[in-house]
Amino acid sequence: MANFETILTDIDDGVLTITLNRPERLNAFTPQMMNELIAAFDEADADDAVRAVIMTGAGRAYCAGADLGAGGATFDYAKRPDRLQQGSPIREDGSVDYSHPGVRDGGGRLTLRIFNCRKPVIGAINGPAVGIGVTMTLPFDFRLASETAKFGFVFSRRGIVPEAASSWFLPRLVGISQALDWCYSGRVFNAAEALKGGLVRSLHAPEDLLAAARTLAWQLTAQSAPVSIALTRQMMWRMMGAEHPMIAHRLDSRAIWSRGQSDDAREGVQSFLEKREASFPNGVSADFPDFGELLEDPEYR
Amino acid sequence: MANFETILTDIDDGVLTITLNRPERLNAFTPQMMNELIAAFDEADADDAVRAVIMTGAGRAYCAGADLGAGGATFDYAKRPDRLQQGSPIREDGSVDYSHPGVRDGGGRLTLRIFNCRKPVIGAINGPAVGIGVTMTLPFDFRLASETAKFGFVFSRRGIVPEAASSWFLPRLVGISQALDWCYSGRVFNAAEALKGGLVRSLHAPEDLLAAARTLAWQLTAQSAPVSIALTRQMMWRMMGAEHPMIAHRLDSRAIWSRGQSDDAREGVQSFLEKREASFPNGVSADFPDFGELLEDPEYR
Amino acid sequence: MANFETILTDIDDGVLTITLNRPERLNAFTPQMMNELIAAFDEADADDAVRAVIMTGAGRAYCAGADLGAGGATFDYAKRPDRLQQGSPIREDGSVDYSHPGVRDGGGRLTLRIFNCRKPVIGAINGPAVGIGVTMTLPFDFRLASETAKFGFVFSRRGIVPEAASSWFLPRLVGISQALDWCYSGRVFNAAEALKGGLVRSLHAPEDLLAAARTLAWQLTAQSAPVSIALTRQMMWRMMGAEHPMIAHRLDSRAIWSRGQSDDAREGVQSFLEKREASFPNGVSADFPDFGELLEDPEYR
Repeated sequence: MANFETILTDIDDGVLTITLNRPERLNAFTPQMMNELIAAFDEADADDAVRAVIMTGAGRAYCAGADLGAGGATFDYAKRPDRLQQGSPIREDGSVDYSHPGVRDGGGRLTLRIFNCRKPVIGAINGPAVGIGVTMTLPFDFRLASETAKFGFVFSRRGIVPEAASSWFLPRLVGISQALDWCYSGRVFNAAEALKGGLVRSLHAPEDLLAAARTLAWQLTAQSAPVSIALTRQMMWRMMGAEHPMIAHRLDSRAIWSRGQSDDAREGVQSFLEKREASFPNGVSADFPDFGELLEDPEYR
Repeated sequence: MANFETILTDIDDGVLTITLNRPERLNAFTPQMMNELIAAFDEADADDAVRAVIMTGAGRAYCAGADLGAGGATFDYAKRPDRLQQGSPIREDGSVDYSHPGVRDGGGRLTLRIFNCRKPVIGAINGPAVGIGVTMTLPFDFRLASETAKFGFVFSRRGIVPEAASSWFLPRLVGISQALDWCYSGRVFNAAEALKGGLVRSLHAPEDLLAAARTLAWQLTAQSAPVSIALTRQMMWRMMGAEHPMIAHRLDSRAIWSRGQSDDAREGVQSFLEKREASFPNGVSADFPDFGELLEDPEYR
Repeated sequence: MANFETILTDIDDGVLTITLNRPERLNAFTPQMMNELIAAFDEADADDAVRAVIMTGAGRAYCAGADLGAGGATFDYAKRPDRLQQGSPIREDGSVDYSHPGVRDGGGRLTLRIFNCRKPVIGAINGPAVGIGVTMTLPFDFRLASETAKFGFVFSRRGIVPEAASSWFLPRLVGISQALDWCYSGRVFNAAEALKGGLVRSLHAPEDLLAAARTLAWQLTAQSAPVSIALTRQMMWRMMGAEHPMIAHRLDSRAIWSRGQSDDAREGVQSFLEKREASFPNGVSADFPDFGELLEDPEYR
């Protein structure tokens, strides 16, 4: 993997572990961290040695949220030159072009990238996950947490709003009432409440957390065809928002037609009939099919 | 607040309590009550002294459903002159113009108004909530109930169908199987089943119900910026129906851009860094931003 | 009912029981079974004597999945002549017309038919339900299961993907994390896990399963107008995917307008006011209203 400054990456036995690594700042989120995380997910998708991705944090926090080093002007993007690398969305007459990429929320750029990941993504939330620290975890497939983790959708206490497309993710994960409770109040809550509310899958002693995430990664992927997993991930997450099951029928008809002819399908059925473990020949990097607009994202505008 | 005939309104310590007030008719729903409730929500949104809204009923019922004073013709809107104040949807040739506002379900006009409310809405369901009495509560953010409350989606027993846009709300709140169980059978069920099924958040002794709702209202709003809460409400409820997280990304990018420059955001971050309570200067009436089509509703047609 | 070869049908006391009947093949799914099931649902909708539908399996299995008699080529539809009765989707130049009906997944053709059923549908899952054996149950309103049932979304272990529009149904029924767990791993799990995960409503001793399903069918339908139930089913399932509650408001406004004038509504209200059982005169076959595009499905393409 590329050398990153704000994150660590490690591939071991098919599992890529990405560690947020600014422990002296409680892994606070910066534009650089966003860029490096997106790049790491790009590499994960391109590398068939990666069967699953785990995300965790270095030190005692998972991620304390946006780095507030700019103080009260932190979210005043119009005045932050680091936000305006693609030019300013402010027109000469002072009006704002809201469709300009310079307006784009950085958290959302990351969560949309994770949404499109072709490998299972597991969070090993080792400590406080606050603001973008928790909203970045919503497109993960599973959130495991340390008993010492804390969570906070603190946006309303900072005078801003939930971001990172969390308004799409959170009510679907925990229900609208639980989502609004956490987001209206902005209060920080403990791991037990996160478990009860459906935000996390299971709690673990701090020293057992990463092992539990790795065990889950292996259980999910050990006997399954990687291309099947990649397509399953794209299909399930996307169809959560589809208007009608016909949309899913168009997509899975094409997927079954396409994968049904593959060497993976031949091996999958034959190994089952022969009562032996399958050995799937296809890889995501070369064999993920192109379904055109059926798996295309809308553009930012 | 305006003087109403079918409801009572009271603002105390930032909380507007709306009480359905036709106790001699078990607070049965009428077109006048619909108009007065819509007007009360309009005033709630316009009044920065209102931080949250509680809805409850006078006497022993919350709301027994549509007033059946017209007997078997109650739902035969084509023959009810009070339904046809904007002219009749029936054309000269006898055919019906279904896009005519005279066809509109009154329950839906109310729930769509509540859907658009800019303050948290809490139900304090003090007794039977049947028909429109329960479907009107579905766009509330939280439903607290008395242990003596009862619920019934009785439409199929009256030969009609679930209304008030409940087909959009109910399966999202309690799951499709639970929604269909209650709506197929039309049976009346008790508060414990409503709690177990996810329809209500918590049960309370009758004498404690209003206090619990008020405590919740304060907990939700005490430390949060009102404009942040208003935007959070609009974003979360709407994005539950959005096709793709990109839609949320467009919306929250613009919201963060806009609110990030606000005095609220400056105060929110600075107060946090200074470890003091925030005092947010912005109010919903003046500072709720205009996001154009991003927060626009489709028209009735 | 028509004579079928792969299923049994029986109408008793208002309940149609459809039994998958290839016990020597663990009721494995074939194109013929798909056609016969679709025909049985067509007859169920047309027959007012049918108030509800139960689906179960003969022998020790519910349905072991697609019949794998064709071995490793089972899912290679391009090479299976039985798939190409409407002509081949493969053009002369070798490219594929993915919009061709020959590409359509057979499981999806069935689940879309069940999605459109006008009677409550209850699964009595008497044994293993694997692959299409479980995905065909997702558009059922309720899944009751024998304590001996097993479930498996085994597609990724066969090198294919979840089908039958399950990417639309499953995450809405059990949440995205549970859906991905089952579909990534492809593992077979027992009835207790299905109950805990929200896939099934209740577990029963094998000898009590059918009786429990029949009791539920009667409880759901005994006191309700059949046309109301039919509309409720169409509205609730469809609005789970609708972008905005206004879509539901358009639909239920028209439904209340239409059914409010019906003899069913008159009888429903009058019987309630007279505190007697209702006797609803309308039937689904003749009185299900035509709402035009409001209840239309998108086409396959």
